[in-house]
Amino acid sequence: MSDQFSIAGRTFRSRLMIGTGKYRSFQEMVRCHEASGAEVVTVAVRRVNLTDKSKESMLDYIDRSKYFILPNTAACYTVDDAVRTARLGREVGLSNWVKLEVIGDEKTLYPDVFGLVEATRILAKEGFVVLPYTNDDLITARRLIDAGAAAVMPLAAPIGSGLGIQNHAALRIMREQITEVPLIVDAGVGTASDACVALEMGFDGILMNTAVAAAQDAEKMALAMNRGVEAGRLAFLAGRMERKLYASASSPLTGVIR
Amino acid sequence: MSDQFSIAGRTFRSRLMIGTGKYRSFQEMVRCHEASGAEVVTVAVRRVNLTDKSKESMLDYIDRSKYFILPNTAACYTVDDAVRTARLGREVGLSNWVKLEVIGDEKTLYPDVFGLVEATRILAKEGFVVLPYTNDDLITARRLIDAGAAAVMPLAAPIGSGLGIQNHAALRIMREQITEVPLIVDAGVGTASDACVALEMGFDGILMNTAVAAAQDAEKMALAMNRGVEAGRLAFLAGRMERKLYASASSPLTGVIR
Amino acid sequence: MSDQFSIAGRTFRSRLMIGTGKYRSFQEMVRCHEASGAEVVTVAVRRVNLTDKSKESMLDYIDRSKYFILPNTAACYTVDDAVRTARLGREVGLSNWVKLEVIGDEKTLYPDVFGLVEATRILAKEGFVVLPYTNDDLITARRLIDAGAAAVMPLAAPIGSGLGIQNHAALRIMREQITEVPLIVDAGVGTASDACVALEMGFDGILMNTAVAAAQDAEKMALAMNRGVEAGRLAFLAGRMERKLYASASSPLTGVIR
Amino acid sequence: MSDQFSIAGRTFRSRLMIGTGKYRSFQEMVRCHEASGAEVVTVAVRRVNLTDKSKESMLDYIDRSKYFILPNTAACYTVDDAVRTARLGREVGLSNWVKLEVIGDEKTLYPDVFGLVEATRILAKEGFVVLPYTNDDLITARRLIDAGAAAVMPLAAPIGSGLGIQNHAALRIMREQITEVPLIVDAGVGTASDACVALEMGFDGILMNTAVAAAQDAEKMALAMNRGVEAGRLAFLAGRMERKLYASASSPLTGVIR
Repeated sequence: MSDQFSIAGRTFRSRLMIGTGKYRSFQEMVRCHEASGAEVVTVAVRRVNLTDKSKESMLDYIDRSKYFILPNTAACYTVDDAVRTARLGREVGLSNWVKLEVIGDEKTLYPDVFGLVEATRILAKEGFVVLPYTNDDLITARRLIDAGAAAVMPLAAPIGSGLGIQNHAALRIMREQITEVPLIVDAGVGTASDACVALEMGFDGILMNTAVAAAQDAEKMALAMNRGVEAGRLAFLAGRMERKLYASASSPLTGVIR
Repeated sequence: MSDQFSIAGRTFRSRLMIGTGKYRSFQEMVRCHEASGAEVVTVAVRRVNLTDKSKESMLDYIDRSKYFILPNTAACYTVDDAVRTARLGREVGLSNWVKLEVIGDEKTLYPDVFGLVEATRILAKEGFVVLPYTNDDLITARRLIDAGAAAVMPLAAPIGSGLGIQNHAALRIMREQITEVPLIVDAGVGTASDACVALEMGFDGILMNTAVAAAQDAEKMALAMNRGVEAGRLAFLAGRMERKLYASASSPLTGVIR
Repeated sequence: MSDQFSIAGRTFRSRLMIGTGKYRSFQEMVRCHEASGAEVVTVAVRRVNLTDKSKESMLDYIDRSKYFILPNTAACYTVDDAVRTARLGREVGLSNWVKLEVIGDEKTLYPDVFGLVEATRILAKEGFVVLPYTNDDLITARRLIDAGAAAVMPLAAPIGSGLGIQNHAALRIMREQITEVPLIVDAGVGTASDACVALEMGFDGILMNTAVAAAQDAEKMALAMNRGVEAGRLAFLAGRMERKLYASASSPLTGVIR
Repeated sequence: MSDQFSIAGRTFRSRLMIGTGKYRSFQEMVRCHEASGAEVVTVAVRRVNLTDKSKESMLDYIDRSKYFILPNTAACYTVDDAVRTARLGREVGLSNWVKLEVIGDEKTLYPDVFGLVEATRILAKEGFVVLPYTNDDLITARRLIDAGAAAVMPLAAPIGSGLGIQNHAALRIMREQITEVPLIVDAGVGTASDACVALEMGFDGILMNTAVAAAQDAEKMALAMNRGVEAGRLAFLAGRMERKLYASASSPLTGVIR
């Protein structure tokens, strides 16, 4: 189908974005990227070997004619760290795009939304295309847009938790209220149905890493995610039937949240 | 992929079975069947014109070289009704297979498991391949198998409700405990993620009707369901990551039901 | 408050019924019964010492001027076993009431609804007041009533699981459709809010054992359950506010199942 | 029981705090306060008649020898508004405590956590005991504590929605990680079991308004909430049984989130 979406003027056909961490090998990573059908691959600037040409780098395994690299600032805990890391990614030629992470807590990897808004503002002014990883708070999402975010990336659940969407009400509200930029669910999904649900709710896309990399058969899960995302998008476009307690019930369950 | 399953010696590649009711037209029905990738199409013997050759019949629209017809006994409220209806389906050449419904209540269309076991026993003895539509009760499922059921078809939720799987614990237990025949979720799904979840739980397949026919764009939903079922099956085979409250939590949430 | 309900002409003020198994001591059991405010205490006929007067019996610890003893047929796997056990309970003077269990599976302790209906019919004809422990199936509940059940006791979840209500839709439907006898949720609750929810759904009462006995502080949990049941009943009578996605949303979420 | 908790050195026995809005009459409000057993009553400074002595004021109906008045800054959309409103409450003799609201959105009434932290800092420096109404974000809660909050009040769901706790994972994490100040769930509950669940999760208390005022029988719901809160607290202290898929399952479902 010709269903596409755009961020900052760049058009994408695949609504699945994929990470590069936790794979058993670079070879497995490559096979998973392939199976996922993703166009966007995110790379932690701090975790990639950018400098030592004598050593192997993850980047050697990503065919940049096929994948759009989205540098991210994973493991950055301050505005300064995140901003410097984004700049480094641009300087070494990765991209002027950045999936911006300003982490607020080592244990949960929850975003620090205060630092995030500030770093978004700084980087947007410097010409970056900023995609901030944030929580499911509508007000914060609006602040990020005001600060120049090109898209907003709310979490489904904590990074690496695999719990799937935890707050359907908050995300449904965010989707209803924000239409000026794409919304990409980022973090927390665990299996294909989680991804499917996110797309059914009308989110423009989804980014994941652990759910694929930590599956027992990562490549098969990458394919499952491809299908799950497509299923969710199609179901969203199709417009689902109404819910009823039973078929002959007099009134539909119009307002069910999930 | 070469992933298949068998019922009574017959092998199926598609794990999505599809109905014939509630479509806006026979033409739309045909397009939906096509989009769904289903191999099995279920037909209500009582609702199809079997006799008057001068009038149009739904059966004229189903290419039997492509689809395996599974007659069903929808709208049968007694053992007698169901048995006679199954026999009629066989006599007019539809099939000796039957998706057996003995409905216990007009409002909810819940199965009458007492009549169901009895009708299963009678029809199995007469050489039918019986696939009973039942509730999510493990003990009833075992009774049905003892009575000769070739597969068991537990509901996700009431027929036509669109609620998705309501009792994850009961269905998970049924799947754990029953491995001698295929288990096909039948009734109650509303959108692609519902189908995906059923397959992720290890069910062999899923049968649906209203979720496709009553979607705003039925054909698109049929395609969504195709992808959702594939996603769910792949994710089941892949083996999902463990759930944790957050990535660095000391212990996985191994026992989460859904 | 003067809010009461009746089973077979007997009136109860407390809507919490309580078991006698799994306590650390008879003394603890007595304290828990006291704290729970229950009027009905259920006793497994097969597990109580009915005959050897030289030995201690659980019954010595239950003050029958304060508690109404409800014998149950726990650990009975056939109609015969259950019927004989009920008769034994009556013969030794426990009661002509019986919480009827016909268990269908050792692992899950799910009821065998087929045997249950039969045993209900036999015992009702013999003048027993029969309260069958059943699953959440509406059709089965109706069969039990037709067979002479004085109340119906659907499960929230498997016995001893502590999972709380698993199928809100099925239980809501049962409550809507059955008004001719009391409905008592039996089995599967784990904590006070589970009990509260059951009463909020309009169930007449709840019976529990493990949730109290296996709590770290059983007596405190018994008191919690007392308050939870009262809270749920009061909230049901009060009539809860409508749900909305947010306060200023244009339409209430009228149909939310849970 | 002698179970108490303290905020800023002041000890409370009741863990239910209650609002003053949306009642059908001041008389009904008084009866509800009474029935709830609350010690703390929150009053919107902006909505109370503080100045015109010739007219009736809600405050005339609150017996300050029995209730501790907690002024709140409802309907304040900026730091300035909120700060000025808090000061006004103190000046007219209400209290130097404040339930601080800085609302970020008219429709959803979600808190503006950015303004909230700033207003908390200003007011804490001025000697106020600040209890900020916030979302379920751990990082924000920590910022509020750093800014001087005496307790943190995360929402269960949007104000006036009646949806109950939406994000069990986020609130469970917050409760695990924050022990230095009390955590009071504020906003979004709809019925007694919602309140019970909040206390079972270990929250120190709960504040509500619409769930009581908009019930069909508000006074009865106030009593239900009293019992629900007590049930939840007792169940938390008692320590609930482990969850299992069924009683004889080999391993408990230790990690279930809700």
